[in-house]
Amino acid sequence: MNYSNLQPIPNLPRLDLPKVVIVGGGFAGLKLALGLRKSAFQIILLDKNNFHQFQPLFYQVATAGLEPSAISFPLRKIFHGVPNVSFRMAEAEGVDTNAKRLYTDIGYIDYDFLVLAMGADTNYFGAKNIEYFSTPMKTVSEALYIRNKIISNYERAINIPKMEDRKSLMNMVIVGGGPTGVELAGAMAELRNNVFPKDYPELSFKNMKVVLIEAGPKLLAAMSEQAQSHALDYLQKLGVEVFLATRVLDYDGKVVSLEGKEPIETQTLLWAAGIKPNRIEGFDASQYAGNGRMLVNEFNQLIGSEGVYVLGDQCILPGGEFPKGHPQVAQVAIQQARNLSKNLFRLIKGEQLVPFKYKDLGSMATVGKKLAVVDLPFFKFQGLLAWLTWLIVHLMAILGVKNKLFIFLNWSWNYLSFDPSLRLLIKPKYVRASERKELIEEKSS
Amino acid sequence: MNYSNLQPIPNLPRLDLPKVVIVGGGFAGLKLALGLRKSAFQIILLDKNNFHQFQPLFYQVATAGLEPSAISFPLRKIFHGVPNVSFRMAEAEGVDTNAKRLYTDIGYIDYDFLVLAMGADTNYFGAKNIEYFSTPMKTVSEALYIRNKIISNYERAINIPKMEDRKSLMNMVIVGGGPTGVELAGAMAELRNNVFPKDYPELSFKNMKVVLIEAGPKLLAAMSEQAQSHALDYLQKLGVEVFLATRVLDYDGKVVSLEGKEPIETQTLLWAAGIKPNRIEGFDASQYAGNGRMLVNEFNQLIGSEGVYVLGDQCILPGGEFPKGHPQVAQVAIQQARNLSKNLFRLIKGEQLVPFKYKDLGSMATVGKKLAVVDLPFFKFQGLLAWLTWLIVHLMAILGVKNKLFIFLNWSWNYLSFDPSLRLLIKPKYVRASERKELIEEKSS
Repeated sequence: MNYSNLQPIPNLPRLDLPKVVIVGGGFAGLKLALGLRKSAFQIILLDKNNFHQFQPLFYQVATAGLEPSAISFPLRKIFHGVPNVSFRMAEAEGVDTNAKRLYTDIGYIDYDFLVLAMGADTNYFGAKNIEYFSTPMKTVSEALYIRNKIISNYERAINIPKMEDRKSLMNMVIVGGGPTGVELAGAMAELRNNVFPKDYPELSFKNMKVVLIEAGPKLLAAMSEQAQSHALDYLQKLGVEVFLATRVLDYDGKVVSLEGKEPIETQTLLWAAGIKPNRIEGFDASQYAGNGRMLVNEFNQLIGSEGVYVLGDQCILPGGEFPKGHPQVAQVAIQQARNLSKNLFRLIKGEQLVPFKYKDLGSMATVGKKLAVVDLPFFKFQGLLAWLTWLIVHLMAILGVKNKLFIFLNWSWNYLSFDPSLRLLIKPKYVRASERKELIEEKSS
Repeated sequence: MNYSNLQPIPNLPRLDLPKVVIVGGGFAGLKLALGLRKSAFQIILLDKNNFHQFQPLFYQVATAGLEPSAISFPLRKIFHGVPNVSFRMAEAEGVDTNAKRLYTDIGYIDYDFLVLAMGADTNYFGAKNIEYFSTPMKTVSEALYIRNKIISNYERAINIPKMEDRKSLMNMVIVGGGPTGVELAGAMAELRNNVFPKDYPELSFKNMKVVLIEAGPKLLAAMSEQAQSHALDYLQKLGVEVFLATRVLDYDGKVVSLEGKEPIETQTLLWAAGIKPNRIEGFDASQYAGNGRMLVNEFNQLIGSEGVYVLGDQCILPGGEFPKGHPQVAQVAIQQARNLSKNLFRLIKGEQLVPFKYKDLGSMATVGKKLAVVDLPFFKFQGLLAWLTWLIVHLMAILGVKNKLFIFLNWSWNYLSFDPSLRLLIKPKYVRASERKELIEEKSS
């Protein structure tokens, strides 16, 4: 791309401090910006959205349990009254590492330190048809889209006379047996079991399938065998059909074909089977590992570029404890950001940098009401206690007192009523003709 | 339109009861359906959305104070376990009053009683440019669109180097001095005074205008003189520029030209200056008044068609107490629906019908925190007490315990923090290429 027409990003405060430009306001980027507020650095935080999103609860947005606003937090609000942090809603596009200049869709900016914390997007592993017809869930917007799509499908199904012809609108297939797939499948089954039959008394739900497909031999591959078998058991209790060691061959928007299994009719194929790191132009191919993660040293410095750091899902530290890279989870991103912020303070003081060391705090997944699995480093448990632990941990992790309060109330409400009330088909509607062109361009991009 | 290819709406329960088809799930339609549940009628309720929307609080959605879900209620949920009421998300298109058949976008349905409660949409009074470039607020989707548009404008403004060039993105002009316009203008001014300067410390808000334009000589024309002058005073206290007796001449998306006043640069022109009733095909021109309202008798029976009733904003009862028609407000719609549901019971029992008699319960509008005006039939008051009254009345009127609770908490939170946290640019995003065509068609329609 040609960046020669770009102007510098305007209206940034002129501070005589070294500039740290952070790309991405996810777990890593936000943690770093928070760590450096009121420091002797000028922070410019960029994100393509104006909010931080709490990815672990996307599935509850998709299944009408929570509002997007409950798990999203305006980035500007976090830095009210913090003069050394500026936010810009922008997409980073490329970099000139020699000139130390970052190019974005709103202009360029010169940095002293560039921190890439851009996370990852859905990976279809080259399956074009699946990419074309299936629905991913890597943003809160996509989660909301899933919710709208499912409700629309049911409103359409009720207008179809023959049961046979309704099947593909009612069945749901989820691909990927990691935490996202397991949590989505469980929540969808609960909707099918408890909510939809009351909303659509005219439809029969005996024939509605919720199917979870995993290519590997186990669900929750990163967890303990105990967690794996309990999760499978819980899903089956809720009526989810789980197909392990099963590969998706193709999808045409109506029928999923599977290796060694009958094809399934569905217009809702949710793809949670893989991720690939986001990237920008300007780096050398040698700076990437084969899977697209960027090669860093133990200080999260990008190998081969001065002053560039990479955090979280986007980076890989070759060798050492995790030869295939650290797990691409929130905890790694947060801990790397914390270590980097401390190292930047050390750098200024001329102190020795401290290498990153991952502390595994455990992992957990929830399948349904009172059904969850928790692996702590020295203690594994399941069921009601695990579910309560999951609730508390996620509540604590959510940013902001108001969001905590509203999520707590929503969960209590949904628990008591077994009937989340967010089944609303609301879209910010572009009504005016004058908006249409802009709209269509936006959607096609 | 040609309806000959339409099939009957499928999957409706076969009850041997007279069929009441209600078009519209607003205040009137919903009230009537609730009144007739568990009656000896079969009710089919149609709405183009799958939820009831609480119009009096749209302006709080537009100004980031409330989530759309707080003021929207899924229509299916309201009729859980009520076997004689069926809901369909559908748009009524036309009617054959001789055959007693209603045509919709999902099929036709034969009725014994047809009730039109379709409400009204924005009226631009033929001003094509204004219709093309301004933004209305007659649905919760449009309110959400306003919110997104304003936030987008500010995220764009901050990337513009010169103050002069930012003006049109920052200024807001609201046309229409009724309750909607007054409430919008007040809430926008509060955002400008208290929230935006913290979100965008790089921008100067001294030059940001919030302008309210009214063609008539007074704000809140339907209220008492006391309410009118207090509302004006409150708006001016909040820094709203109020132009009375001022007509909007034209708008090109950037500049509003006004009669006898300097033009104003703005990309945000909110149009709340008039409404026109919605309509469907198949009635005779003689059944409409000049303003598009349908002529009914004192039982809300449409004049000239047997078995058709019209409620609320869509109807007019000529002569009598209100020669220009009852005010187009929620209370009239609700009271007419209540009267009609009682009359339908009477009809079945062969009793005498009771004519509709409007009981004016008063009216109110809120301008800002602790600033509201209330006109009760025998008592008019303003200020803090009026504001508390407004809060309580609206809280009571909102459907559902959960919505009441969440709105109460939101209001308390916003009151204490003076900082609503819903400034999120979230759209259900259509990511897949396969969706684009459908999307574009939807948006162009």
